[in-house]
Amino acid sequence: MPVSEQDVKLIEKIVEEKLKKLLAEKQKRMAIIASKGTLDMAYPPLILATTAAAMDIECSIFFTFYGLDIINKKKNKNLKVPSLANPAMPVPMPNIIGALPGMTAMATRMMKGWMKKVNVPLITDLLDIAVETGVKLVACQMTMDVMGIKKDDLIEGVEVCGAAGFLEYASNADITLFV
Amino acid sequence: MPVSEQDVKLIEKIVEEKLKKLLAEKQKRMAIIASKGTLDMAYPPLILATTAAAMDIECSIFFTFYGLDIINKKKNKNLKVPSLANPAMPVPMPNIIGALPGMTAMATRMMKGWMKKVNVPLITDLLDIAVETGVKLVACQMTMDVMGIKKDDLIEGVEVCGAAGFLEYASNADITLFV
Amino acid sequence: MPVSEQDVKLIEKIVEEKLKKLLAEKQKRMAIIASKGTLDMAYPPLILATTAAAMDIECSIFFTFYGLDIINKKKNKNLKVPSLANPAMPVPMPNIIGALPGMTAMATRMMKGWMKKVNVPLITDLLDIAVETGVKLVACQMTMDVMGIKKDDLIEGVEVCGAAGFLEYASNADITLFV
Repeated sequence: MPVSEQDVKLIEKIVEEKLKKLLAEKQKRMAIIASKGTLDMAYPPLILATTAAAMDIECSIFFTFYGLDIINKKKNKNLKVPSLANPAMPVPMPNIIGALPGMTAMATRMMKGWMKKVNVPLITDLLDIAVETGVKLVACQMTMDVMGIKKDDLIEGVEVCGAAGFLEYASNADITLFV
Repeated sequence: MPVSEQDVKLIEKIVEEKLKKLLAEKQKRMAIIASKGTLDMAYPPLILATTAAAMDIECSIFFTFYGLDIINKKKNKNLKVPSLANPAMPVPMPNIIGALPGMTAMATRMMKGWMKKVNVPLITDLLDIAVETGVKLVACQMTMDVMGIKKDDLIEGVEVCGAAGFLEYASNADITLFV
Repeated sequence: MPVSEQDVKLIEKIVEEKLKKLLAEKQKRMAIIASKGTLDMAYPPLILATTAAAMDIECSIFFTFYGLDIINKKKNKNLKVPSLANPAMPVPMPNIIGALPGMTAMATRMMKGWMKKVNVPLITDLLDIAVETGVKLVACQMTMDVMGIKKDDLIEGVEVCGAAGFLEYASNADITLFV
């Protein structure tokens, strides 16, 4: 039986509607690479990931290079904000002052103060929320080898994997970010 | 009426062609997070966004953390290039010199000079072009709260929204970048 | 001939299966923007790209701003790690010490040492591997103009293109990252 032109139109319409529905229903996914170990750059991956989890977006963070410090239990309570080389700091200071010992500590204390004032949780609290809401925290195997970090040095609930494993996950993600 | 095997083949062919067509015709979208407030890192989001707009790629920039300075009308004429901690600066200088007061100003003046020489517009001009070409500029609500910034402090044509709103937009984007 | 409800169900099923097949068969693609010229930030784009190539993910890196140094044959043997403004450096040092001449050289030597210990290839080796495995290396035309860099200054096998060309490529990528 030959398919009429009208049939083709009808089939195409069904395809269009079904495609829209399938794309809308698709489980969304976000893959973040966290490569920085400063306090200011520890917030974005964790705030984005916990927000995504609350929206039912599946999410995984790959902690690599300095970013590994964020899930290092010996270090992540003491992440610091650099006072130097950041002319965008809300209270800009000439570099020669920023270079004085103590200025990094001051910049760090300032940021913690602001965050607390508007009820932004601490990094360690954000990590707890992330684990509770199903965000996958992944440590980069190569970074652990390079820096001599053992799995015991990391917080609970972390998986270890290589770049290939993470790229496999990211290649099916809707949002991919390198922080 | 049972559908013959031949009919199924024909229907599959129609479906495949229509699907390919629909996917190819999809309106492309780019979602950028601008988190840095230095002059050098203010350029990439704005150059990429205005280029995308010229290519009919729908585009939105979420200004968060230090990146909020880029759309802060009291600050965005004075964004600076850090002279320190950037050994990739075209004229490298030992850190002790980079730490001297005045060196950030010099690095900033140098970058502005280069950009002008090859007709790259100023940040404020790029913002005007972005608004004119339909790039959506979005200020991060949480950053405004943390830094005590009011909507009046920002340039005209900016929307304010939270991370969730931006992730919703980004989850349907084809290009997602964290600058 | 009216299409029965049963026919619609059949067509929708075909759409669902066909879409899954098309998406599963799609050649995966990664588009990376490399904007930093420090040794530590030269590794991520090259490690990710060469790993992707080994997984049959098509990959292209767009070298722009300071990132152009990575493919500049006069500079890429001497990329440096900033000792300042990075409190996440494994051996943290007060800024005033980091500002001393020689400290950038020490941080750089330390990173090279770690990388060698666990057999991470040098940047120049990673570039060779990238070219051999089909990673496309793309130099940003505007950056070349701004910095006065000629194609002769760049390593062999590099293409030159503008932001528009790269966004066209990235708009069909599955993973997009700004490093």
